[in-house]
Amino acid sequence: MKWSKAFIPTQKDTPSDADILSHALMTRAGMLHKQAPGVFSYLPLGLRAIQKVEAVVRQEMNRADAIEVLMPHLNPKELWDETGRWDRYGDNMFKLTDRKGQAYGLGPTHEEVITDIVRSHVHTSRDLPVTLYQIQTKFRDELRPRAGVLRGREFGMKDAYSFDVDEGGMIESYQAMEQAYFRIFERMGLDFVAIKADSGAIGGDNSVEFIALTQAPDARFQNAGDVTVVSCNGCEYGANIEKATSLEETVETDDPMRVLELLDTPNMGTIQELEDGLGIRADQAIKTILFQTDEPNNPVVAALVRGDQDVNEVKLANALGVGEVSAAGKYIVQDTTGADVGFAGPIGLPEGTRIIADPGIRGIVNGLIGANQTDRHYVNVNYERGDFEVTKFADLHTANEGDTCSQCREGTLEYRTGIELGHVFQLGLVYSEPMHATYVDNKGTEQTMWMGCYGIGTTRVLAAIIEQSHDKDGIIWPMEIAPYQVVVSSLMPRDETVKAAAESLYQNLQENGVEVLYDDREVSAGVKLKDADLVGIPLQVVIGRNYLKDGDVEFRVRQGHETEYLKPEQVLGHVKTIMKGE
Amino acid sequence: MKWSKAFIPTQKDTPSDADILSHALMTRAGMLHKQAPGVFSYLPLGLRAIQKVEAVVRQEMNRADAIEVLMPHLNPKELWDETGRWDRYGDNMFKLTDRKGQAYGLGPTHEEVITDIVRSHVHTSRDLPVTLYQIQTKFRDELRPRAGVLRGREFGMKDAYSFDVDEGGMIESYQAMEQAYFRIFERMGLDFVAIKADSGAIGGDNSVEFIALTQAPDARFQNAGDVTVVSCNGCEYGANIEKATSLEETVETDDPMRVLELLDTPNMGTIQELEDGLGIRADQAIKTILFQTDEPNNPVVAALVRGDQDVNEVKLANALGVGEVSAAGKYIVQDTTGADVGFAGPIGLPEGTRIIADPGIRGIVNGLIGANQTDRHYVNVNYERGDFEVTKFADLHTANEGDTCSQCREGTLEYRTGIELGHVFQLGLVYSEPMHATYVDNKGTEQTMWMGCYGIGTTRVLAAIIEQSHDKDGIIWPMEIAPYQVVVSSLMPRDETVKAAAESLYQNLQENGVEVLYDDREVSAGVKLKDADLVGIPLQVVIGRNYLKDGDVEFRVRQGHETEYLKPEQVLGHVKTIMKGE
Repeated sequence: MKWSKAFIPTQKDTPSDADILSHALMTRAGMLHKQAPGVFSYLPLGLRAIQKVEAVVRQEMNRADAIEVLMPHLNPKELWDETGRWDRYGDNMFKLTDRKGQAYGLGPTHEEVITDIVRSHVHTSRDLPVTLYQIQTKFRDELRPRAGVLRGREFGMKDAYSFDVDEGGMIESYQAMEQAYFRIFERMGLDFVAIKADSGAIGGDNSVEFIALTQAPDARFQNAGDVTVVSCNGCEYGANIEKATSLEETVETDDPMRVLELLDTPNMGTIQELEDGLGIRADQAIKTILFQTDEPNNPVVAALVRGDQDVNEVKLANALGVGEVSAAGKYIVQDTTGADVGFAGPIGLPEGTRIIADPGIRGIVNGLIGANQTDRHYVNVNYERGDFEVTKFADLHTANEGDTCSQCREGTLEYRTGIELGHVFQLGLVYSEPMHATYVDNKGTEQTMWMGCYGIGTTRVLAAIIEQSHDKDGIIWPMEIAPYQVVVSSLMPRDETVKAAAESLYQNLQENGVEVLYDDREVSAGVKLKDADLVGIPLQVVIGRNYLKDGDVEFRVRQGHETEYLKPEQVLGHVKTIMKGE
Repeated sequence: MKWSKAFIPTQKDTPSDADILSHALMTRAGMLHKQAPGVFSYLPLGLRAIQKVEAVVRQEMNRADAIEVLMPHLNPKELWDETGRWDRYGDNMFKLTDRKGQAYGLGPTHEEVITDIVRSHVHTSRDLPVTLYQIQTKFRDELRPRAGVLRGREFGMKDAYSFDVDEGGMIESYQAMEQAYFRIFERMGLDFVAIKADSGAIGGDNSVEFIALTQAPDARFQNAGDVTVVSCNGCEYGANIEKATSLEETVETDDPMRVLELLDTPNMGTIQELEDGLGIRADQAIKTILFQTDEPNNPVVAALVRGDQDVNEVKLANALGVGEVSAAGKYIVQDTTGADVGFAGPIGLPEGTRIIADPGIRGIVNGLIGANQTDRHYVNVNYERGDFEVTKFADLHTANEGDTCSQCREGTLEYRTGIELGHVFQLGLVYSEPMHATYVDNKGTEQTMWMGCYGIGTTRVLAAIIEQSHDKDGIIWPMEIAPYQVVVSSLMPRDETVKAAAESLYQNLQENGVEVLYDDREVSAGVKLKDADLVGIPLQVVIGRNYLKDGDVEFRVRQGHETEYLKPEQVLGHVKTIMKGE
């Protein structure tokens, strides 16, 4: 492609709404044009990079025996009603009504549609297993679109779905996809981890997230990562913050249990105020937080964690078996406890209030709790003595940095930040049961299919690559994803000798299967070199004065700007060697 | 691909909602799964065929120097308000509101978005011309979705847009696209015509439609064509029915003009009743039809054509410069003429009523018109004498079969039916002017860009191919579009010798770049041969008893079922020869 005929509107200035580096660089490199919050057009360089991502994904899906299909964006409400997700998905799904009043959602994911296809066409165990995938635009009405294509409202995804006769089959299909994901992200040159994750709105039990690790690049931009990865410095353990567990360490003490006592604690509604006012340690206190659920009959629940820890809402929701919980508002707290916020506790709550507690509170000796009376706390509280009752124990607390690993019980947990690239789920019967996706087995018995689902954000991957691979001058594409592999920059486009050499090199590389961007524009050498660096093509061939003097062209590797001088006829061989090496 | 691992749910029965043959065959061949009216999932064979269509389109677009981009489905209302199309598009556009109340349309076409991109990034004549295209799903809320993927509500399209400095540039860009379209449809083996067409809701002056000609295949199915192509048997002239013109032939007569006379014509409100009652010829009568427009101040207009002709509403709307006209209702006719329906005429209409007449009425001597009085007509009416006035003459009548060609003035017009494959438009300034898409020319003056737009229905193309290329057994794919080029059918999958030969042939063809579907299923020979015919793979290799006996495989061409016997080692050469010949 000749640059003069291309459409690559590079720009010097960082767009004012770019909160992360990849968004700034994609815009400056002429890859992206914003149409609305979280809605973008992909300009030619951006689309070529996306198509490269899709090609890698497609190859690895096909290699893993997944078969490509294409499902519609318009998802009839009736299908989503079969699983109850029409209501559960709520405002995150774009919804619309056609001229006849029929309601549709714009597909944010396609479990319902694919299950409809498979239940319609697969009838016996002979047709199973089958894994189907598509590469397609998805929609999600994000509350706060931000971070360029990372939290867009219309974005590219590969989504795959497996159907098996039983749980063992499902696990095999799942593992084949998991392995394909490792190959895909390795081919893209990404620095990533695969960690245990919560299944969220998709459902199912086992799921692993693939996360590209990120850092805040410099003061101008935020860290693009929006997932907190918790990992152990002593073993392989890794999970996202919603799923990560740390050891419930008991504070060792020889103190005898003392008599329960009601204390006046005026204006001590927080752990900090109690520490300051009473001189107790935070890990001696039991924090009681009230939450609301969407269960109509008994919506309020009390969650208990150690005073130095926090309640993880996702863990609490999972422990309760509900979709979501939210902190109870002031009036609900007053109504339930009879006291102001800050003085809730497990003793004397209204009958029927569920008390879910983190196991970490069990060993606290002579602890402190709110008394459900304004400005009063109990001290010398001991769960082991039976001072209060607990409906259910469950891991509720957020694993903190420095906590001991729950898996090896030795290492220390660390926090890192990253971008979710992909997610694999074992769905089990979550969709196939309500949607009656069944088959007849060898014995003539009807059985329900076991499903898995597997997503990769194809447009997010681009942003993740840029966050990991850039320098002060611009993007540095890995070879597999680069929109072009080589840029040939003619620095003297009006000099006939230089022009002829550049054109011939361009032709020669193209004819040999190299994707070349040929910068034939009549702009200054400075602009050409800056633009080549900005758009991040991995190999640069510069033809200018040195060619007139010595017959040499400058051959530069974008990563690190290593430069050597070659004769034009050496370039193709050099390019091929580097391309094979990648 | 091994058929046993593929997902090709063929079926014997024609689906009950299939009104056209291509829909029936696409469903039976396991290409398509219907999710809602006009909304489909494409199963693997269907998607592969679409991807072949897209590959041909992409190659020819790139060859014509068009550059690929990808625009979003969510089109902000504000952009469409700039051209006034948000309202004009009406119910045909799916519209939705996000969680913050912002309105979006699902893109049925992308003139507004592409113009926004180009006006944002192109500033001088140095950046022009540029032609951008995308291949993408489009949405249209059809009133009556039907005919499978032909009149779907979510469908594939390639849409391209050119931007030039002036009209001459626009015409050059337009012609490059027009030529690319000829190459595209020729490569797909389609029997098509390129005809003049009305520009409809897209706007602009010159446009050509590419139409695949169709016939009703048999009594079970309708003719899939929904465009009437009018062409001349004497010259190259061709246009669609909304645009086609025929010669306004004057009825030659030596009669002298007689005195205007008011006649009682009880119950003679139609041309037929007048012919029967008065014994006049239809071509002596002048038909006056009242229409309504959306112009608020003066909505009613009278259209005059010869009694043996019909008013073409699209032509009338174009003559008036409005988007749409519709026949006036009974009450409006009574209110305007003071008479019942059937007695309108050009004499004595309320002042200010526009009278638009077809030139064919000019030469009528002693004609007949309605008198604007119930049960009364005027006879001996002569426009040439000044019996009534006409606001504007314009070609209004629908060209009939048998009419004389307006171009060569000798040939006779014929009707054929077809499917619209693509449409190219010269848009001029229709979008660039209201949207301020301007550039600065060499002299520093701001100028408006000249635009063209160019669409191909990529999913429709599949249906058109099938309508033209099938037999009683199923689809017959042209080589360029076939989901696989060869199907290898092993008729004795449990015989080790046959199995080994089939597998080795499958591997050999695949390794040499041939796309092969290998039917290794444990089903009867009959099912395999029927399925191979149904899905329409162009070349069939059958391995069975003959191989055990003589070492021969059967090599069959799907089109016509010509069969020859070959040794396995001859197959690759044979396939390659045929593939090159296509």
